[in-house]
Amino acid sequence: MARNIQSLERAAAMLRLLAGGERRLGLSDIASSLDLAKGTAHGILRTLQAEGFVEQDAASGRYQLGAELLRLGNSYLDVHELRARALVWTDDLARASGESVYVGVLHKSGVLIMHHVFRPDDSRQVLEVGAMQPLHSTALGKVLSAYDPVAHTEAVEAEREAFTPRTVTDAAGFEEVLDLTRARGWAADVEETWEGIASVAAPIHDRRRMPVGAVAVAGAVERVCGEGGEPRAALVASVRDCARAVSRDLGAGRF
Amino acid sequence: MARNIQSLERAAAMLRLLAGGERRLGLSDIASSLDLAKGTAHGILRTLQAEGFVEQDAASGRYQLGAELLRLGNSYLDVHELRARALVWTDDLARASGESVYVGVLHKSGVLIMHHVFRPDDSRQVLEVGAMQPLHSTALGKVLSAYDPVAHTEAVEAEREAFTPRTVTDAAGFEEVLDLTRARGWAADVEETWEGIASVAAPIHDRRRMPVGAVAVAGAVERVCGEGGEPRAALVASVRDCARAVSRDLGAGRF
Repeated sequence: MARNIQSLERAAAMLRLLAGGERRLGLSDIASSLDLAKGTAHGILRTLQAEGFVEQDAASGRYQLGAELLRLGNSYLDVHELRARALVWTDDLARASGESVYVGVLHKSGVLIMHHVFRPDDSRQVLEVGAMQPLHSTALGKVLSAYDPVAHTEAVEAEREAFTPRTVTDAAGFEEVLDLTRARGWAADVEETWEGIASVAAPIHDRRRMPVGAVAVAGAVERVCGEGGEPRAALVASVRDCARAVSRDLGAGRF
Repeated sequence: MARNIQSLERAAAMLRLLAGGERRLGLSDIASSLDLAKGTAHGILRTLQAEGFVEQDAASGRYQLGAELLRLGNSYLDVHELRARALVWTDDLARASGESVYVGVLHKSGVLIMHHVFRPDDSRQVLEVGAMQPLHSTALGKVLSAYDPVAHTEAVEAEREAFTPRTVTDAAGFEEVLDLTRARGWAADVEETWEGIASVAAPIHDRRRMPVGAVAVAGAVERVCGEGGEPRAALVASVRDCARAVSRDLGAGRF
């Protein structure tokens, strides 16, 4: 197999570097982080800057991500059939449940949020489209790990961090969670990722019956869960209804 | 000056190609559109795919934009001080005005929407973060063109399309609009871009007094404008108050 193009791989590594951690870096930091000669790093940065992928702060000379990434990220959303099909159904789910709704897809070793409907109240909320969530502890991640073999491999091979005392981190326990998810057709996260937050998710399938994503409702554990500490049955039903509706819109059969 | 890196420029051109028009393209289409040999195009696409910037549809073999762009676009928003400072003030403006609020920055030859607060009612609205607006006809675009010399050059050199009968397209008329904008400190778009829609925008300055963006309210012309067909004075005041508040948060002096 032919080799990939080195300058492109290096450019991608620079963008990832600028997307995490410090976020504004000087030429020397970038070059040394990626083990490149300064001249090499500068040539790549200059080209990325000309294309709008990075911007250089006039005062400090430091580099940061550029606006062209936002424009292209938005185009990615426009292109994606899953999001288009999910728009109406997730709006209805947020209204019916009174909670925030998320649609996530597998991306690298996590869940990428590609749609987020705010909780329908007047509170201030921050849009989480483009954010990543862990596979092993969130409801979205468990559903993807249970139904998508690639996600399963990622979740199994990853180091499963304990975000709260309730996070399941051991391999056998995690597989049991996935078995339960497949048996019930949905997954829950009751304070396993964030203290005080619970979520419920169900899988979205396309016309080839492939698991292409998942939809979840998330909110305060007191509202999402009933007396026994399990998610309320009516909420679970609403989430599964929504996932089925989106799946049907994507061409998945009913049976 | 050293030359930019050709494979990177070609990769950026591919992403732009996939972001516009057809949005799902086969190898031959991509190669011929960019005047590349198929082998060259394939090497770039394969690398972009490995990095998550493009995805290949399993059934058709066609390429589309990849999820990594959404993740990086979100990181761009996180990095940007303007958006962080604008969050609270634009929320207040949407609540006070009852209309949608937008924050835009100059990007290439247009306005990139980097923040969008929904109109505070229960209607279904589509998030426009990452979308582009024209410089010559929108309130945001006029403000940027009036205060930012780079935006001015872009707007003057562009072909100014007539979106409605009210769009100002001739060069002298456009300069008059910009003079008026600078004299008043704000700009309006009354059905010059979209029939039935009016907007009002004011400039945001940073600590070096540079115009770094603009904030706008947009809505039905019947609500935004008063009897005389001009934007209501109270709305103009609210938009300017918001722009000043964000500017102060960015370190701009009061005088």
